[in-house]
Amino acid sequence: MRPIIFLLFAFVGVTGVVGSTAAGPGRADEEAAPIFGVKIPPGYRDWRLISVAHEAGNLNDFRAILGNDVAIEAYREGRLPLPDGAMIARLAWSYDPSEENNKVFGRAQSFVAGPPINLQLMVKDSRKYAATGGWGFAQFKDGKPAAEAVHETCFPCHERVNARDFVFTRYAP
Amino acid sequence: MRPIIFLLFAFVGVTGVVGSTAAGPGRADEEAAPIFGVKIPPGYRDWRLISVAHEAGNLNDFRAILGNDVAIEAYREGRLPLPDGAMIARLAWSYDPSEENNKVFGRAQSFVAGPPINLQLMVKDSRKYAATGGWGFAQFKDGKPAAEAVHETCFPCHERVNARDFVFTRYAP
Repeated sequence: MRPIIFLLFAFVGVTGVVGSTAAGPGRADEEAAPIFGVKIPPGYRDWRLISVAHEAGNLNDFRAILGNDVAIEAYREGRLPLPDGAMIARLAWSYDPSEENNKVFGRAQSFVAGPPINLQLMVKDSRKYAATGGWGFAQFKDGKPAAEAVHETCFPCHERVNARDFVFTRYAP
Repeated sequence: MRPIIFLLFAFVGVTGVVGSTAAGPGRADEEAAPIFGVKIPPGYRDWRLISVAHEAGNLNDFRAILGNDVAIEAYREGRLPLPDGAMIARLAWSYDPSEENNKVFGRAQSFVAGPPINLQLMVKDSRKYAATGGWGFAQFKDGKPAAEAVHETCFPCHERVNARDFVFTRYAP
């Protein structure tokens, strides 16, 4: 019996360590976003990649969409709606031409991620967020949540992709 | 003593499990790329994000640049040159306008990752690849390496960013 008990104990210990050493912003004492009460999940910058996007026009940003383990596994299995516990982080940076790359290539072709713009989060909890498709939404800049008025715009836009479980991003293989 | 031994034992066990359940392509029996002999590292699709990019012009692709743990840690600490064992995976997809997103937004603004184009890899081994800045290079499409002539073009281009340890991509926070 003893080895099994120690193994289980060690497993929990190791899992805890992996979680707490995850780098990047997001601490438990950070401010919660209005309406949905979502906080920045610790270690979100270590999550795996779902896909990338560029929104032109007014936004003109570069995006990476990351998912926690629950989200990534459901995406890869093509399971919709995403299960409770799924979390998606959308990181946006300025969409910048890369002068240094263009110089090397000898032509203007390279666009890279510039300074961070903001962080958006979607958190699946079908009971807590039953009124908004099971999703809680949040937007942060430099660790600070955006105003309530901003958070009022999340669901009306995501509601239009209700056939895709209110998520715009598809998985990039 | 006993708990410590079991803890260590369990740690190795857990680490092994995490490694072997990493999803995505890349198997040990896959073909090695010419010149550098680089194979697709198992689980590379689970690596953490370094940054994103868009190459316009002839390439017109969308890119995510992922790094293994060695690469990510060095990047985050701003350590150049990257140490031996660092591996970088550059995934490229078609740079596609998203009709479905544009319909929702009511304007043409959204670009997303379309079908995969290819996978490029950089593997740091300062002894094995001493003649090419310590880097081995590889390009794959659908798990198959590109021709030798393609691989002859890797270093002459990356050599131009030797001040950045031959790597174009900077870390996106």
